[in-house]
Order: sequence, then structure tokens, then C-alpha cells
Amino acid sequence: MARSQLITDIGELTTQVPGEPRLTDAALVIEGDRIAWIGSAADAPAADESVSVAGRAVLPGWVDSHTHMVFAGDRSAEFEARMAGQKYAAGGIATTVRATRAATEAELAGNLSRLRGEALRQGTTFLETKTGYGLDVASEEASARIAAAEADIVTFLGAHVVPEGIDAREYLDLVTGPMLDAVAPWVRFIDVFCERGAFDVEQSREVLEAGRRAGLGLRVHGNQLGHGGGVALAVELGAASVDHCNALTDADVDALAGSDTVATVLPACDLSTREPLAPARRLRDAGATVAIATNCNPGTSYTTSMQYCVATAVLQMHLSIEEAVWAATRGGAVALGVQDSPDAVGMLAVGGRADLQVLDAPSISHLAYRPGVPLTAAVWRAGERVPAASSW
Amino acid sequence: MARSQLITDIGELTTQVPGEPRLTDAALVIEGDRIAWIGSAADAPAADESVSVAGRAVLPGWVDSHTHMVFAGDRSAEFEARMAGQKYAAGGIATTVRATRAATEAELAGNLSRLRGEALRQGTTFLETKTGYGLDVASEEASARIAAAEADIVTFLGAHVVPEGIDAREYLDLVTGPMLDAVAPWVRFIDVFCERGAFDVEQSREVLEAGRRAGLGLRVHGNQLGHGGGVALAVELGAASVDHCNALTDADVDALAGSDTVATVLPACDLSTREPLAPARRLRDAGATVAIATNCNPGTSYTTSMQYCVATAVLQMHLSIEEAVWAATRGGAVALGVQDSPDAVGMLAVGGRADLQVLDAPSISHLAYRPGVPLTAAVWRAGERVPAASSW
Ligand SMILES: [Zn+2]
Ligand SMILES: [Zn+2]
Repeated sequence: MARSQLITDIGELTTQVPGEPRLTDAALVIEGDRIAWIGSAADAPAADESVSVAGRAVLPGWVDSHTHMVFAGDRSAEFEARMAGQKYAAGGIATTVRATRAATEAELAGNLSRLRGEALRQGTTFLETKTGYGLDVASEEASARIAAAEADIVTFLGAHVVPEGIDAREYLDLVTGPMLDAVAPWVRFIDVFCERGAFDVEQSREVLEAGRRAGLGLRVHGNQLGHGGGVALAVELGAASVDHCNALTDADVDALAGSDTVATVLPACDLSTREPLAPARRLRDAGATVAIATNCNPGTSYTTSMQYCVATAVLQMHLSIEEAVWAATRGGAVALGVQDSPDAVGMLAVGGRADLQVLDAPSISHLAYRPGVPLTAAVWRAGERVPAASSW
Repeated sequence: MARSQLITDIGELTTQVPGEPRLTDAALVIEGDRIAWIGSAADAPAADESVSVAGRAVLPGWVDSHTHMVFAGDRSAEFEARMAGQKYAAGGIATTVRATRAATEAELAGNLSRLRGEALRQGTTFLETKTGYGLDVASEEASARIAAAEADIVTFLGAHVVPEGIDAREYLDLVTGPMLDAVAPWVRFIDVFCERGAFDVEQSREVLEAGRRAGLGLRVHGNQLGHGGGVALAVELGAASVDHCNALTDADVDALAGSDTVATVLPACDLSTREPLAPARRLRDAGATVAIATNCNPGTSYTTSMQYCVATAVLQMHLSIEEAVWAATRGGAVALGVQDSPDAVGMLAVGGRADLQVLDAPSISHLAYRPGVPLTAAVWRAGERVPAASSW
């Protein structure tokens, strides 16, 4: 029988099982990589090991459904220029493309592993990441392969921007043909940056339809910098998620509310680009499914902190703490199509994956009540406790 | 001779010595509690111990010049209500006064020690804290005494609000008489909450003048919720700092710019109360001295994270990273009157206190470029390395 671990004296347990309130004086048992038992601390069974969390809050690990972690280089100079007043434009991506193409695979894998570890220690137990800084067949294939070795789900974002030295038509043929074939073994989704300066709606449709023919799920970067039509296209094609959603018409909100497409908001990106925050409150009120993700990337949102995103969603986007935590756990799972048993994530249920975090706080409300304080005190991923960062 | 420690391979060293740019490839030597040497890593002398920080950035420890850490209880319910739309009012202070009076001295000291440790591990090496949740002679005396055992500087804030069961005139006589006498051995400053619902300008003047007669420096909570006259009073009386500064007239800005009174902004408080951010950019541009502090307290800003405040000041108040880091180190030192040698803080200079932090990043720009990521990787306070949090 697999090794069992009892986690007990849980002051507040958020399971995200539909309809279940936060439980108090709770305990749970992990067997192997699965949750084997959840109940009252007083009724907890014996286990091979036992950890008292002394009244702390326990919740599912974060599901970060939108990152761009396969890259080399740094764009702190561009960041400092933006903070000095320069407006964000999509063109900065080219800087990272040059650095990524110049890097060795070992460098790319090392950088990804560093960021993935940083995220994990902050409670992110399930992570999507994208290609999109290679933008030629060999570099995108390498990016997808490196990503698949580290991330839980990989998305193909060949359609990030049209790289230098190739025209748009020729590049689209590459993305929807040889590049797609090369990355296909490693990726589950295709994505497109449907935005001024990147791809228009018809080009985006072409990319997404090619991905669908190859058996991939669909994701869209849409409506970040303007009313670009990305949201409408995502809903029309039944994409799993459309991400950013800053500039929305009433029709966009209605379309999202009437669809299964998740609206993923990226609070740290909005603040880092000094663009208006996405209308998460309005989307929730209309009935849309809202997820929260970091958009971790070196240009517009260089953070791995889901806690920062949750705090911002509460303090500044006016979600309640329960809505924000849901969006950062189950919301991300729905956005990635991993919400169903037996391998559902973003939820703690008997038989499900043992991906959970312990807060150094008695309640999830502290995630917003105590902004900036690193509250993730311990993390279990697939039943294994994550070691603390080694010091030097 | 005191034990010496060489800290070398510093990728970027911010000393805050006036006029000195960020140094690259630097090193420093600590002897006892002092900085003994600063220079190029290539020229570094030998020391009893040597630590390579492998290209990381080093800067002074944060100086948090405004906290309220002597309290008991929790106001997460009030926080959740505010996040659900209820407006902040000063009345919530009474909740904490009740809990604080009911707590034992050991409980108050334990809570303060926990928060002080949490702040220290996040890089805060010099900390002010205030009384103000006792509001009777015995409780304020105990608060001041407990604070003095843990914080670097203690401020007497008997004039926080008029507590229940006593009229304002009678309470002012207490604050400016027996209460002031009782706390005097433990405190360096007197402070007053000059705000609608707390004390008006004439009451505030009476409190501050009594403090001055007792030999204390002056601080003011002013202009948080309206144009209350606190800023003008602080400048008129030559207060060391006026804190909050959200609602400023042109005359207030001009007065601050033409004075030695520091304008201390509290970004986490502004976000946690959903009030407009203080105009830090406008204050700097006018020539005022700006400091950044957490205002750590259980009602309106329950954070110890100076990094969160610095990131918010850059991303949302439009300070440059250098201005924000200055405001959170030297700015705090000026606001507390501890800017001069030999015991200056918020600066790294030969002969000065060895209070410093190492970032898990190559540059201070990452403090805003990577919001929410816990970047403080190591801290030395008065020459002693701060141990990591113990895990459980
Ligand atoms: Zn993205
Ligand atoms: Zn205060």
C-alpha cells in the first residue's frame, strides 16, 4: 500500500467541491498521490506520518493556466522605460525571440525549471506554459519539448507575433503547417495573440482551425489593448479560454456569459503594463466563468505569484476572496479542461490528486487581507511535500 | 577584533550614499555590527567568513517608519465586509482596542514578535511602531513598554481615537497629562490621528504641543480621508513626518515641498481601504521628501511587506524604482530622524550600521518587475545574519 500522510488540525479547509462550504477543524489523508480521506480532525484515521498544521488554512494548490516560461534573457530595461512613461506595445516580444533563439536548450530548460520551482514553492501545483519565443520550426519544436518536460500542459503559440524577416502570409503557412506538425507531439492546445500588432481575426481563425484539425484545444489572447474581436472569435470557435479580456463590449460580455469559454484575467499583467484592469466583477456578475492566471513572461508580467494576482483581484477588481480563490484554482482547471475526475485539479476530493497548500494564516481571507506577505507555508504536489528553497 | 564577514560577487549594490550610482561587481565587509569596507569585488580584503551572493543585488534593509503592531485580535471580518462594498471608517479601531485591553502582556508581546520577525525576514531591518490600541493609562504604558522591547523606535499614539466611555475633553487631558507621563520613558515621538471621526486640528495641536514639551518628536496621521488640515498643522509645527497624504490641496503640496516634514505614503493601506492612492508622483515632482511605509495594522493595512509597497509605488503611484527604493530606505530614515552618522539607517556606508538585504534578483528593478515574488533572499541586521523561518 502507498505511504499515507495525515494532515490534521486544519483551521479552515477549502475543498472547492461544488456547494461545500469552508470546513473548520478538518483533516485529510493522502495515500500515494491521491486524497484518500477528508473529514473532521476528531475522526481522523491513523496514517504512516502525521503533520499538524496547527489551525492554519489549507486549500488546493494554485492552477496557473497562462504562462510563457520558455525564454531566455530579461526585459528589465524595457520595464524601466515603461515605468518612466513609455506605452506598452507588442513589439517587445522580438527582444525575447532573439535571446531565446540564441540560447542553448540547457539554458532554456534551466530558466524554466527555476521559474517552475519558484512557482511551486508559492503554491502553484499545476502549470500551463506556452511556446512562442522561438517562432521558427526548430526553435518552436525545442520550446515545446522543453516545456513538456516541466509543465503540466503545453500550449503552442507560434502565432505570437510575425517574426522579423518573413511576411505574414508565409509565416501563417509555417505556423499552420510544418511548425504545427513539429510541436504536435508535445502540446495540448493552440493559442493565438489576436491583437493590433500581432494577428487579426481572420488570421487568428486560420491558426485556430488548423490547430483544431490537428486535435488541439483552443486558447486565445484577446481584447488586451482594444476591442479586437478575439473574444467573439474564441466564443464562436468554442475555445477553452480567452485571456486578458480588458477591453470588452457589452456583446463580448454577453457572449462569454452564454458560452463555455472561460474569461481568464491577468491582474499582474494589467498592473505591469499600466493598462486598465480587466472587468472581472462585471464578467462574474454577467455569469461568465472567470479564471485568474499570472501570464508569467519577461515582458509584461514577470511574476510567478498567484497570491499577488488573487490579492489584486480582490482589492482592485472587486472579486470576493472566495470568488478569487475559486478563479485561481478551479477556474484555472476549467480553463485548461482538467476539471473532471479522476484527474481533476484545483479541487480537494477523495480519489483526486493531492495538490494542496497550507497558508501561514487561519483563513483564505488573509490572501488579500495581508497583501505581499508570502503566506504559502507548505505545498504538497501529487502527494509529495515540496522542499523549501535551499539557501546559499 | 570583531568577527568580519565579506559579502562578495554583488551584481548591483545600492548604497543610498548621496550621489552614488548603483555599483556593479561590488563587495562589502562587515565587522561586528558595522560596515567596514565597500569596494570592487576584485579588491576585496580577506575576512573571517566569506559569502558569495553570485551576482545578486544588495541594498539597505527596509526602514518601515509607520506600523501599529501592538494589538490583539484580527479584523478579517471587517476586511471581508469592506471587500463586499462597505466603506472604511475610523470606528473599526474600537474593535482592536477591546481585544488589546483584554489580552495579556505576553500575548501582545508574542504577536508583536511574530510580526517583527515576519518583517525582518522580508528585509525590514529598522522598524517604528506605535501605541494606540490601549487608550487608557495602564494599557498605553504597557503597549509602549512592550513596543520598546522589540521595535527600534516607538511612537505614542494615545490620540488615535477617543475611546468609548469618556468625553473628548477629558480624554485629551489624559493623553496630554498622565498618559504622556506614563509612556514617556519608552517613546521617542508623539503622533495624532487628525481626521474626521478622530481629532480635529485644534485638538491635534494640543496633543502635539504637549508631546513637544515632553521632549518628543512629532508625527501626524493627516489627510487620509479628506482635506482635514493635518498636513498644514504638521508643517506648521515642524513635524518629522505627516503620513497618509491622500487628499492634498495645492497649498498642502507646496507647504510640504517648502518644509523639512516628510510626506509618508502608505500604498498598501490605500489599496486595502480602496481609497485613492496618495499622489506620491506629484509630491516628488513638487520637491517634497517622500517616504514609503506599510502602516501594518489589523484594520486597514495588515501587511509587513515593504516590497509590496515599493512595487505598488512604482506600478501604480508612478515613482521610478530608484525613487521608491529610496523612499523605503532613506526616506523612512529621514522620517524617523535617524539619517545622520554614525547611527544612520537606510544607507550602506563605511562606519555605518550593517543593515542590508540580498535580493534573489540581479537588480532592484525586479522589486517592481516581479511583483509578489518574495525576493528577499538573505538579511543582515546590525551585522547578524537573520535565520530563515523555521518550518514545522
Ligand atoms: Zn500571454
Ligand atoms: Zn497609521
